[in-house]
Amino acid sequence: MKVVMAQCNFTVGDLPGNQALIEAAMQRWGQQADLIVFSELAVSGYYPMDLLDRPSFIHAQNAVLETLKAKTAEISAAIVVGAVSENPWAGKPYHNALFVYQGGLEVFHYAKKLLPTYNIFDEARHFEAGQLPGLWLYQGQRVGFLICEDGWNHVSDPSYRIDPVDQLAREHLDLVISINASPSNEEKLQERIAHFSRISQRCDAPLVYVNQVGGQDEVVFDGHSFVLNALGQPVACLPGFSEAQVQVDLSDIQAQPTHAVATYSEAALMFQQLTLGLRDYVKKCGFQQVVVGASGGIDSAVTLALAVAALGPDAVVGITMPARFSSSGSVDHSLQLCAALGIPCHNISIETEFTHSIQRFVESFGEQPSGLTQENMQARIRGKLLMEYSNHFGHLVLSTGNKSEMSIGYATLYGDMNGGLNVLGDVYKLEVYALANYLNQRVEQAVIPSAIIHKAPSAELSEGQTDEASLLPYPQLDAIVRLVIERDLMSASEVKADLDILASVSDEEIHRIARKVDQAEFKRRQAPPILRVHRRAFGFGRRLPIAQRFQPVWLLRHA
Amino acid sequence: MKVVMAQCNFTVGDLPGNQALIEAAMQRWGQQADLIVFSELAVSGYYPMDLLDRPSFIHAQNAVLETLKAKTAEISAAIVVGAVSENPWAGKPYHNALFVYQGGLEVFHYAKKLLPTYNIFDEARHFEAGQLPGLWLYQGQRVGFLICEDGWNHVSDPSYRIDPVDQLAREHLDLVISINASPSNEEKLQERIAHFSRISQRCDAPLVYVNQVGGQDEVVFDGHSFVLNALGQPVACLPGFSEAQVQVDLSDIQAQPTHAVATYSEAALMFQQLTLGLRDYVKKCGFQQVVVGASGGIDSAVTLALAVAALGPDAVVGITMPARFSSSGSVDHSLQLCAALGIPCHNISIETEFTHSIQRFVESFGEQPSGLTQENMQARIRGKLLMEYSNHFGHLVLSTGNKSEMSIGYATLYGDMNGGLNVLGDVYKLEVYALANYLNQRVEQAVIPSAIIHKAPSAELSEGQTDEASLLPYPQLDAIVRLVIERDLMSASEVKADLDILASVSDEEIHRIARKVDQAEFKRRQAPPILRVHRRAFGFGRRLPIAQRFQPVWLLRHA
Repeated sequence: MKVVMAQCNFTVGDLPGNQALIEAAMQRWGQQADLIVFSELAVSGYYPMDLLDRPSFIHAQNAVLETLKAKTAEISAAIVVGAVSENPWAGKPYHNALFVYQGGLEVFHYAKKLLPTYNIFDEARHFEAGQLPGLWLYQGQRVGFLICEDGWNHVSDPSYRIDPVDQLAREHLDLVISINASPSNEEKLQERIAHFSRISQRCDAPLVYVNQVGGQDEVVFDGHSFVLNALGQPVACLPGFSEAQVQVDLSDIQAQPTHAVATYSEAALMFQQLTLGLRDYVKKCGFQQVVVGASGGIDSAVTLALAVAALGPDAVVGITMPARFSSSGSVDHSLQLCAALGIPCHNISIETEFTHSIQRFVESFGEQPSGLTQENMQARIRGKLLMEYSNHFGHLVLSTGNKSEMSIGYATLYGDMNGGLNVLGDVYKLEVYALANYLNQRVEQAVIPSAIIHKAPSAELSEGQTDEASLLPYPQLDAIVRLVIERDLMSASEVKADLDILASVSDEEIHRIARKVDQAEFKRRQAPPILRVHRRAFGFGRRLPIAQRFQPVWLLRHA
Repeated sequence: MKVVMAQCNFTVGDLPGNQALIEAAMQRWGQQADLIVFSELAVSGYYPMDLLDRPSFIHAQNAVLETLKAKTAEISAAIVVGAVSENPWAGKPYHNALFVYQGGLEVFHYAKKLLPTYNIFDEARHFEAGQLPGLWLYQGQRVGFLICEDGWNHVSDPSYRIDPVDQLAREHLDLVISINASPSNEEKLQERIAHFSRISQRCDAPLVYVNQVGGQDEVVFDGHSFVLNALGQPVACLPGFSEAQVQVDLSDIQAQPTHAVATYSEAALMFQQLTLGLRDYVKKCGFQQVVVGASGGIDSAVTLALAVAALGPDAVVGITMPARFSSSGSVDHSLQLCAALGIPCHNISIETEFTHSIQRFVESFGEQPSGLTQENMQARIRGKLLMEYSNHFGHLVLSTGNKSEMSIGYATLYGDMNGGLNVLGDVYKLEVYALANYLNQRVEQAVIPSAIIHKAPSAELSEGQTDEASLLPYPQLDAIVRLVIERDLMSASEVKADLDILASVSDEEIHRIARKVDQAEFKRRQAPPILRVHRRAFGFGRRLPIAQRFQPVWLLRHA
């Protein structure tokens, strides 16, 4: 059996566009392949959220399905396409399903049995779990289907009441096909291959794993589709972070050599995640260009460099906006950076506007604005200026806060938090440095001036301010907030590494920082979407009340 | 059996505070009552969201439960308390449950069977459904338990695979007890009483319904707990929107006279919802005072009047910020309004700052800022000024946009959208007028000047601008956006009423407005929490992707 893995970049709600991607693959492979496999919810895009509550959306999706089904009359291959289907039984009105079309007919239908409802996933909100077996007979072969989470019961937490893999493993399969919209996060690629390798061994059958690729709001789907032989060895691997298609002949699969699986350094993986996520967010939202406030610091430098890598220098503009507390470096380094990136950099002093704001405050309220008020004033004047540029020239503003800052609310709401997308909001501060070094090494000539990498981080909103004096040294700060946010998803050795970093930090200091994480929830609720690279990011994957008074005893040192 | 309905205002995560409320009721009723009933998730508060993922939170809740259980040794009554319990079976780690404690022991435990996972509800994210019957024998009586959604299967949509009411109806019950965290929205009170009246009739037993009261972020729980006799007639009703407790002797329930159920006009209900929601958000977030930008328009006037009604005049400050396009009325009417409300009103011109922003833009970029840019400039200068006031004086900023404006993005991000809470974001424009009239009628002397009610609505951000010229007349605009957002939850007659309003509006015009609703999603994602009064509000109850391209054919005129 010749099977095509069609790893496409679908867009949520773009029914004509997604249809065109599917039809192009049918056109390309339809006369030579036996089966063309598309990813989960290929027609609607993953994840349509409450678009699923609109009858007009389902109606339009079903019209596309009818067309695709009819077009299989013109090709010899069958197609496997992920789509929403109607649930004829009690419960939620729809299934997250797949259809197999061949010769103009629907020849098989399978509904996902495990509906992830944790972290970024909301499937129980819209779907009812399928009950019927995913077993299809094709060309004399016994084919078992899984849809994404169906494959993950015996490792994922929380666990489920049933295990679709157990059910398939008893069926003497000749082939397992898994269609997926599996997001990228640290370690996920290795986990995924190792996990499905065990499934192919358990089922004693080759396994075809097709994943979506592309950015969708916060989430980046990495592709990396693969075929495993019955020993669980990869014999075909599609690239990550780009569209790709390949046909694999399963009839001689045992004779095929094993294929090396892609590996990435931590920084290289983040680079791929962030550039794809950034590019797709900008393009899928209909923007052409972005603008970033260049502070002379590492976060804005890395954001600008990632934007240039994602969109090209013609699509990126920097604006440096010095005021009285800005070091000379904040302008000079920004100009150097933008020159190295080949992008324009506007240099606009906000000092007059800052002075005027203070005067107006004094005249209005009869007292000097507090230190905090003055700090936020500067950030908000800059944020306003970026939005003026955006409104006038049409560029999307990217905000530059990193995960460590966003954790503890070290950012000004309606100031430096302004933007349509926060590129580094899931990247801890030390990782921002690793990304900077990676960005410099991947090109011939370093793009981020070493002065930016080596200066002490500072918001430069008051005299002599540095982040680490206001907060904690970043290695320790990163360790605390990572434990607060992600500890339940970390391995024992990762937890131990962070606890070791905190050996010399007092409990009081740890609690002071940990409490800031809860206190800053109100700011994050109004933050732009954050590109997700870790196991748990701020945004849809982490839902907390604002008006709440839990005083946690953060037992960070204990299990 | 003497049963106490304890209708308390619990706060999410405030374990010591919630414990104190429960202990106070035990103290008050413990020696005279047989049973004291608290609401759903009383100990943790409803809804703790991902606090449930923290072992320290569960640990702290369990410590409170142990204390409460022990304290029942000192009273004669049993208590029914809603709390998180551990799931010993496969699936999610916890149940949404209730415990019955008596004489220092746990005498019964029941886990909720229907977990709402739609609109604002996320229960399948954290809980596994209970499997065991809610049947408890107490003082020779057969008591059947329901937890909130358990009672709603045969009317709520989506429906569930099982019906806990069916199960109880076969048990020859002597009493049904339902504990709830049931949010307030239009028509809900009437639906609730009518629905549980049918349940008590089906079970042929009296029914005790205890609801939480209070605001929690977006959601307002209205209380209105009640007792029904076996004919479904109310014999005891607690007030809405405030804490209350009453003991009802069920032994002579058939002899008790029926009790009138509270009724509210639409405006009166919104007034109650919004003032409670506003007061609790401000207090539960730890603020004492609020500040509102007073534009001279109806939205800011109603927001200010609601804030004064909720918090008292000492807790509210208005700031009017005229610029060149402001009518003389914008200042005069704001001053009149604030005088009538008995609150200070700062009058601060933003004209100099606006002029300076334009000049700086021209100097920086060599061209005049576009009309849209200039409009947003003014809104952002005002938003910045409010935040300066907030940073310096510690007042929470309330934003003033109504649901009609928020629907179509007729608001400036980082400008008039600034704030910790949006009070009117679920109130359509015509309803804002109804609220204004209600606010004037409920006090001796009108607080909102009639000039504010009768002037044409305008953002006053450009020459001669009025909302209805920029958009559509508000009756038609309201009808379109209500159908777009809430049609699936509206009755046939409500839909027909809106379609009638649109009889003379072209399809193109309807589609133009409807598309704006999707296009404005990016703004709403960064909006403050919106107090929910309708069946579907913006925020947690309506989840849509930003980067999506669905081009809906809004079949508004068709079924």
